Amino acid sequence: MGRVTERRRVIRVRDGAVGARPDTLVVEEPLEIRLNGGPLAVTMRTPGDDFALAAGFLVSEGVLGSAEELATIVYCAGAQQDGSNTYNVVDVRLAPGVPVPDVSLERNVYTSSSCGLCGKASLESVRTTARWEPAAGPRGITPRTLAALPERLRAAQRVFDRTGGLHAAGLFSPDGDLLDLCEDVGRHNAVDKLVGRALRSGALPLRDTVLMVSGRASFELAQKAVMAGIPVLAAVSAPSSLAVDLAQETGLTLIGFLRGTSMNVYAGEGRLALDGPGAGAAGPAPSACGSGPAGA
Amino acid sequence: MGRVTERRRVIRVRDGAVGARPDTLVVEEPLEIRLNGGPLAVTMRTPGDDFALAAGFLVSEGVLGSAEELATIVYCAGAQQDGSNTYNVVDVRLAPGVPVPDVSLERNVYTSSSCGLCGKASLESVRTTARWEPAAGPRGITPRTLAALPERLRAAQRVFDRTGGLHAAGLFSPDGDLLDLCEDVGRHNAVDKLVGRALRSGALPLRDTVLMVSGRASFELAQKAVMAGIPVLAAVSAPSSLAVDLAQETGLTLIGFLRGTSMNVYAGEGRLALDGPGAGAAGPAPSACGSGPAGA
Repeated sequence: MGRVTERRRVIRVRDGAVGARPDTLVVEEPLEIRLNGGPLAVTMRTPGDDFALAAGFLVSEGVLGSAEELATIVYCAGAQQDGSNTYNVVDVRLAPGVPVPDVSLERNVYTSSSCGLCGKASLESVRTTARWEPAAGPRGITPRTLAALPERLRAAQRVFDRTGGLHAAGLFSPDGDLLDLCEDVGRHNAVDKLVGRALRSGALPLRDTVLMVSGRASFELAQKAVMAGIPVLAAVSAPSSLAVDLAQETGLTLIGFLRGTSMNVYAGEGRLALDGPGAGAAGPAPSACGSGPAGA
Repeated sequence: MGRVTERRRVIRVRDGAVGARPDTLVVEEPLEIRLNGGPLAVTMRTPGDDFALAAGFLVSEGVLGSAEELATIVYCAGAQQDGSNTYNVVDVRLAPGVPVPDVSLERNVYTSSSCGLCGKASLESVRTTARWEPAAGPRGITPRTLAALPERLRAAQRVFDRTGGLHAAGLFSPDGDLLDLCEDVGRHNAVDKLVGRALRSGALPLRDTVLMVSGRASFELAQKAVMAGIPVLAAVSAPSSLAVDLAQETGLTLIGFLRGTSMNVYAGEGRLALDGPGAGAAGPAPSACGSGPAGA
């Protein structure tokens, strides 16, 4: 329990040179917060300081304001397959007389609130609900094509330069052509918008595409890629441990730290042409659709 | 409806020089997603492409997989005070025969799910539940002290350098001394951990502190600062429109784009010593506590 980082093998591409080396990832696991025994919220978090996380969440929501209002916080026995505690369920008991809120404060709930909540359950939940196998995606995507994506994403962002406050999600062809772009203050929203546009135009599953995001690759973003049938997820920044786990289990190609001519490949390297410096740099980005008003 | 950016007045500090100018902010507003008429999720988003956002969210959650499974998406009449539609509530109707999920998929719900959901309601919700007035905080904080915080935060981060995947939240004294630090894959979790540690040690409200976060300043982070009684929130990146609204309403000092010797002050400038180049650079950061295992 409580591990903040994990070591994983990663394929590192730099200036066309390819090598494998161990890499340190930040751990991401779900935490279910219960209040007086009842389910309240699930958040994806880095293990550690879990009791503080639960208490602070309740301060933010106006439930707690002082240590006296807090009776106890304990780990509930969320069981791993081997019977050991997952340390991913905490129960907060309020002191007598402290009112229990009647509004639901639930965050994203990927699994039912039964015990056994852990990263494995999150992966299992995606596996059982996913409709498409991402394995059937494109092959031979070159590092040079991938290296061009961040700049194309930035160039196509209509709003980012003015506010610096928007995340972008871009959908590209395997040759690096920009197919669609969405922006939002929340990176999960930007991906939802992209996927929702595809659904409404009958384009799901997005088999022959690369999803590029402007920030980090969390479990949630990897989940959204898998659920939309997207075979390749590339991020400017780091992935989490659970995003890598999900990618490896489902066959998603996961690329992180895509900057300049270097990148880390965490899973699904079979789709990439990693033999040489990579031909096939694609042409200029042809289209962008941004965050216009919601269409009919 | 559908505005992606807003113009606001901001106080810009650069190398000790202070000036006011208009600034462009990304708009953040809550969107309630209903499914077949029932409340399902609330997400803070940038208005625009709302129908796509709702549809994509349901793809991610395994509810929708094709356009045929979607019957209609409409704006529900969420009313502003003047009676006009907020465009912040959408109702998704599934095609006949498409199963409705029985799990709750709710995200952070700040308000009850009645119509009228808008930024104003989010602000009102914080105002009615906040226990402390942040107005009573420190005065005379110098730009030089603030300018030193990002580097102190980075220096104190034990994990960031190894993974690049963790957000940090640091609690500082008005003189710039590091009081506590928490890290997490989610920035809201890092702040919750910090506030929860303070609650458990009897330190709420955090009247005499500055909260520094490694990313952007969203409504959610501003809310957490206000709810913990923190008078000053500083962020490396951009704030959202709703974060600025909340800061202005509650008296929170909100600083964004805190980089090198420059920063933007969006609200609560009365706490800052903006008359000159600012004396009082503080000493080295003395302590850090990071993300250890959850304590007793």
